[in-house]
Amino acid sequence: MDDIELLPSEIPVPVRWTSDGRALDLLDQTLLPREERFLRLKTVESVAEAISSLRVRGAPAIGIAAAMGLAMGTLLRIEADPEPPSRSQLVNGFREDADLLRGTRPTAVNLPWALARMERVFKESVSRGSPSEVGDALAREADLIAAEDREMCRRIGEAGVELIPENGAGVLTHCNAGALATGGIGTALAPVYTAHARGYPVRLFADETRPLLQGARLTAWEARRAGVDVTVITDSMAGALMKEGAINLVIVGADRVAANGDVANKIGTYPLAVLAKHHGLPFYVALPRSTFDPEAPDGGRIPIEVRDGIEVRNGIEVEGAFDGRGVPDGVGVWNPAFDVTPAALVTAFVTDGGVLRPPFGPAVASLLGTGPGNTA
Amino acid sequence: MDDIELLPSEIPVPVRWTSDGRALDLLDQTLLPREERFLRLKTVESVAEAISSLRVRGAPAIGIAAAMGLAMGTLLRIEADPEPPSRSQLVNGFREDADLLRGTRPTAVNLPWALARMERVFKESVSRGSPSEVGDALAREADLIAAEDREMCRRIGEAGVELIPENGAGVLTHCNAGALATGGIGTALAPVYTAHARGYPVRLFADETRPLLQGARLTAWEARRAGVDVTVITDSMAGALMKEGAINLVIVGADRVAANGDVANKIGTYPLAVLAKHHGLPFYVALPRSTFDPEAPDGGRIPIEVRDGIEVRNGIEVEGAFDGRGVPDGVGVWNPAFDVTPAALVTAFVTDGGVLRPPFGPAVASLLGTGPGNTA
Repeated sequence: MDDIELLPSEIPVPVRWTSDGRALDLLDQTLLPREERFLRLKTVESVAEAISSLRVRGAPAIGIAAAMGLAMGTLLRIEADPEPPSRSQLVNGFREDADLLRGTRPTAVNLPWALARMERVFKESVSRGSPSEVGDALAREADLIAAEDREMCRRIGEAGVELIPENGAGVLTHCNAGALATGGIGTALAPVYTAHARGYPVRLFADETRPLLQGARLTAWEARRAGVDVTVITDSMAGALMKEGAINLVIVGADRVAANGDVANKIGTYPLAVLAKHHGLPFYVALPRSTFDPEAPDGGRIPIEVRDGIEVRNGIEVEGAFDGRGVPDGVGVWNPAFDVTPAALVTAFVTDGGVLRPPFGPAVASLLGTGPGNTA
Repeated sequence: MDDIELLPSEIPVPVRWTSDGRALDLLDQTLLPREERFLRLKTVESVAEAISSLRVRGAPAIGIAAAMGLAMGTLLRIEADPEPPSRSQLVNGFREDADLLRGTRPTAVNLPWALARMERVFKESVSRGSPSEVGDALAREADLIAAEDREMCRRIGEAGVELIPENGAGVLTHCNAGALATGGIGTALAPVYTAHARGYPVRLFADETRPLLQGARLTAWEARRAGVDVTVITDSMAGALMKEGAINLVIVGADRVAANGDVANKIGTYPLAVLAKHHGLPFYVALPRSTFDPEAPDGGRIPIEVRDGIEVRNGIEVEGAFDGRGVPDGVGVWNPAFDVTPAALVTAFVTDGGVLRPPFGPAVASLLGTGPGNTA
């Protein structure tokens, strides 16, 4: 089953090459659902800005955008002058681009993972090929990362659909771990789309996901386009929804998973895991293998991004009654973008290599050490 | 210790008589924190509208506003015509007013509780007094309800301060159960204000409380005015905050508490109770005795208000980047205003009659059956 069949074609991929292969068209997700606007990015700086500003977000999509940005940077450097750049100019430029992209967001491990893949290809090609061969090799590798991600999403869907009751299920998700976050049909949403394509009556509930409302804006948008029955709740309603018996399982994505199975994901994930445990509901984390970080032994070693308080400080607008800021001036706010869910609260990981159950340490090591798609 | 000393005088009471005692000045809380505007209410309909629209909110304050509105209705009816109204005109008018107010919001029990007190006074006075004596009796009873609430808040503060560590405490609260929600220094915030007045270094954390942001807008506003160190988080951050060790105790208000101790309070309270249990933190519910409902044996019998989805549907505005709605058109939302926390998750109730510990059934029955302030 191909994911082309699972998702309507009008759900765009988050980032793609322009037809001349020298710029990127990136869907500005900060404008969804009101407006579908593609930004044409012609510099590495603009790609870095798009990642920092969450115009593209979701761990796998960040990795893809960074890889494409890095390839674009070298391609443009090669063609900028009548004289081809020297080897050291290529090397220094590549390093600067990689450092710029690496510094955009600290938590998603797919970003350094994708950059490391690109660096390996760069080093190999620059030591023996012409500048244009280096550029071509980088573009091919970026495309390969995107294609592999697409295939990993499909496999996550195939593995995860087995966890969804065929005769009707209420599925709760958080943030957006869908097509907009990946190169394919998503991670957390892949099993939902696969179940929907098989005709299972799935009812999806999307936490709105404060502060930036990726659930209300993005998950709702793409699920509706895909024809999935989706209802938005505030993050604070998940407990009541579980208590009502409306939820059969929780499934979320991840930004980085430590070797022991601790999960860094969008702020608000950890409370869902605690609630799921309290209600005896399974709590699944869906991810491609590129989101595991074998270098982090546990969640305490995962860097957690704290973003500008303005994201929390801003209030909501209800029919003009509350306009502007919610938090009074002079009052502090705290805005961590992620939290860490201990492995003990995870029922299973749904990966492109199948469903991993506890103990996670050996299962993760086995997944990363063997199997198709492993790039080590 | 008087609550005058605990709160700066510029924190206004939510509703008060105009100087001629024939209209109400009501602080429009939907405009806070941007604007402090008092609405002059001259009809029972406008009082009902103010309650429905959450211009005044918080279970005790709703009860006070409804009682004052009911008194105002009768006073105006008596004075509307050169001819004093007949007894049946008074009775029918009072009933219509009471029905209108009763229908505004279903969950807070202080509303029917206050209306029942007013009805009792009305029946007694109308059977033997002149119309103006009826009006005066109603106004006195409404003022008594407000004065008693003020005293109950003070006592809640005195009882609850014993639960707050003297040498520094992180206190998490949800929604607004402060001065703006009561006739005094609040319910959940009363112990915090009392501790602050005693010089305890309290750090208050306020859940923003989606969808209507009463925590971000109201709790932050009044706590800052009172000089309390307050930090706002999104509802989804409470778990991470507990995990960081920043919280020593959780304290919330209540809209209705069943005879067995089940608590209906602002949506998002129940997940906090589950998280507190998971982290081994005490979870306190602060309330005056008027918030207990002996007629509801358990939480399943408490009516839960489901409000218009527009409150969830509206997105946030971040520096103009996301404007307008968060949820795409055509996507459903669910918007229950309250959830029910089972008594088993409540460490103790902090009341004007002291701290009640499990088993709650006998403790609640004892509180309601005896003691000062009992109006039965």
